[in-house]
Amino acid sequence: MSSITKRLTPYRIGLLGLGAVGASLVQLLQQQQAELNAQAGRVLQLIAVAARDPQKARPISLAGLDWHDNAVELAARPDLDLVVELIGGENGTALDVARARLAQGQDLVTANKAMLALHAAELARLAETNGAQLYYEAAIAGAIPIVKALREGLLAGRIQAISGILNGTCNYILTEMTRTGRTFAEVLAEAQALGYAEADPSMDVDGGDTAHKLCLLEALAFGRQPDLRRLRVAGIRHLSPAVIAAAEAQGYAIKLIGQVVRDARVQPFVEPCLVKKDRPLGRVAEAYNAIEVTSRYAGASFFEGRGAGGEPTAVAVLADIIDAARQRHSPLFSLPFAQLERAPQPSETGPSYALFLRLIVDDSPGVIAELSALFARNAVSLATLQQAPLPEGARASAELQIITHAADQLQHEATLDSLSASPLVLQAPAVLRIIEG
Amino acid sequence: MSSITKRLTPYRIGLLGLGAVGASLVQLLQQQQAELNAQAGRVLQLIAVAARDPQKARPISLAGLDWHDNAVELAARPDLDLVVELIGGENGTALDVARARLAQGQDLVTANKAMLALHAAELARLAETNGAQLYYEAAIAGAIPIVKALREGLLAGRIQAISGILNGTCNYILTEMTRTGRTFAEVLAEAQALGYAEADPSMDVDGGDTAHKLCLLEALAFGRQPDLRRLRVAGIRHLSPAVIAAAEAQGYAIKLIGQVVRDARVQPFVEPCLVKKDRPLGRVAEAYNAIEVTSRYAGASFFEGRGAGGEPTAVAVLADIIDAARQRHSPLFSLPFAQLERAPQPSETGPSYALFLRLIVDDSPGVIAELSALFARNAVSLATLQQAPLPEGARASAELQIITHAADQLQHEATLDSLSASPLVLQAPAVLRIIEG
Repeated sequence: MSSITKRLTPYRIGLLGLGAVGASLVQLLQQQQAELNAQAGRVLQLIAVAARDPQKARPISLAGLDWHDNAVELAARPDLDLVVELIGGENGTALDVARARLAQGQDLVTANKAMLALHAAELARLAETNGAQLYYEAAIAGAIPIVKALREGLLAGRIQAISGILNGTCNYILTEMTRTGRTFAEVLAEAQALGYAEADPSMDVDGGDTAHKLCLLEALAFGRQPDLRRLRVAGIRHLSPAVIAAAEAQGYAIKLIGQVVRDARVQPFVEPCLVKKDRPLGRVAEAYNAIEVTSRYAGASFFEGRGAGGEPTAVAVLADIIDAARQRHSPLFSLPFAQLERAPQPSETGPSYALFLRLIVDDSPGVIAELSALFARNAVSLATLQQAPLPEGARASAELQIITHAADQLQHEATLDSLSASPLVLQAPAVLRIIEG
Repeated sequence: MSSITKRLTPYRIGLLGLGAVGASLVQLLQQQQAELNAQAGRVLQLIAVAARDPQKARPISLAGLDWHDNAVELAARPDLDLVVELIGGENGTALDVARARLAQGQDLVTANKAMLALHAAELARLAETNGAQLYYEAAIAGAIPIVKALREGLLAGRIQAISGILNGTCNYILTEMTRTGRTFAEVLAEAQALGYAEADPSMDVDGGDTAHKLCLLEALAFGRQPDLRRLRVAGIRHLSPAVIAAAEAQGYAIKLIGQVVRDARVQPFVEPCLVKKDRPLGRVAEAYNAIEVTSRYAGASFFEGRGAGGEPTAVAVLADIIDAARQRHSPLFSLPFAQLERAPQPSETGPSYALFLRLIVDDSPGVIAELSALFARNAVSLATLQQAPLPEGARASAELQIITHAADQLQHEATLDSLSASPLVLQAPAVLRIIEG
């Protein structure tokens, strides 16, 4: 086929899933047809869609599109150049479709981080063996083109560390808890009513979604096989308004952070951390996402943008569609899969770090001296120790807000053991890592 | 040639220019050979270099490389897959080389924003006609992959506005002036001694370099032919420590900002502006660059990173080299050149904006009332008006720091005319635009 004929041939697309992102994608494709075609160098033609309910009211016109009740059937059509999978779910239909398309050497666009994180090796091998491309810019941090930035932009910079706020739902909840002083349960219920949180929010608020994304970022940045088991993961359910207020009183915001470093012996983590309120990561509000990349040769880079929502995510999907139409190819995780490092299970605790503790203690004379001595015995020195006023009726106890100097994880664990054993400490302490941000 | 043979064939590169970026490029290519080859899917082989002085002491080994005194001669070699032009200069050798390579249908990587901004139409046509690719990630904002982000990442977002800090030298000078209270001349001299500023700093400090970059960003974001004449450009030479201190007292940093909006009738500008100190652009320090992109469908995105320096810029050059080796192609400015809009000369002043003024006025009773009335007569209302203490010996005059509410450019110009005509105003006022940041 001559290059001119090829340009005139429409690029035929099938879409699986008509949720918020799928509907926005249809809309953006219709509204910006001429520009997108010019950018793609092809006529982008949406041919077919598959979704569960053809009768559901949707703010888009599906006139002229083939409707499939069965996504696998759509994906099996030989007349599609590209399938866009927006069904979600780590297994089931999405995985069936991905396997089928890649096995036929056909390109696939997906926003499915769970599927990618859990089936990376199989999907990468299928794609490579059959000469297919798998695009997933929309899987991580919505409209921030972070896959491109890592895989094509900073890849020669020798990245050393990545810290990110990767889940918009959690950041929204934490922002609202901070702003209003309400509980996690109250803000979650409101977020669910507004459509910002799922009916079952556990994948977001327990850190699993952030872990999937971090795992993919780790693979992209360090040429490492994605391996979810390497990550230590904690969510935000346990955070109280009191601990958020205490952190704020010390100048910090609490953010759900995913962090990974180049040294494969150090465990990547997803957990709520304190970040100085005036640092870039500490200032990320509402449902925004942000990623800080530190590299040896390019220094610090910072990316912030909308992490979720129909239109921002559809913009990322369209970037992938245009990459696919232009046949811009990359290995799934920066390197051919066979050259990715299989990282050992982490064995080191990594660089030392500071802790924030909120303690409810017996309000008796000498308690501060005794607790200070407890930290000192564990070789953890204190940066600040402040007594905060407690509400009336809690006069027999006192709230202490403590920030330690940096110490290693074993020292911190030993300190926490000592605190648990101390009769002066009246409740299980709130303990959070402090990161530089 | 079969695909396997092609992969085994080295990708032969010629390098023009061995300044800070060129030397870092050689070093990074040598240090990360295995990783870069795996990422590129080819063996990246630096074959030849051209620079002025073969005897100059350099921190790199040039053993095994062909040396050319004449860059044009190197660029004419038919055995090179790619030439990397790091000579700089809008005309002369760089342009000769670009013309020669593109005319032969051969790819070129450049960091030369001046050449691109001034010869965009010719170079784009040469590239398109002959099927060559011109890569220039390193030309704008060093290690921030902004060309990729606009051309491949956010292109479906319908970008509405871009505001950037695009010149590291200016941002360094302004950061130091703010930190130390020293004059422009003093800080410039120090920056020159440290190698942060050129012996002839005019392209940086008078805004020309920012204008070149903004012009390219405008083309990428809006599908518009680059046209430097559309821009209003002012630099930072005239900024005094007093005006920087006055802005700071009002909660603002002064940054050299380039801003462009989608409406082609509105004039893009490069000028020092006030940005709230706690806003993302207001916080960008030292030689960092930052770009804020607002798009209809993707909301606000923010990118920050090193804008200059040998290694960060070499990282961007390597990203282009790998794109070229992988044959990832894009139109020079997001669309085929024939489809770019030729924008009219700007005719509108754009959205209204607030102004900051520092006035030295006669310290007589009633001066504030008279000046307030002057603003009111021009339909410009005041947000704050504050009298600042002047040093001893200046007692017959007073310093006023004024922040207006938003008004359009004509209103502001009329106000400034009235101020110039007023006998109460003892010196030409310092007047700066305030942006949201």
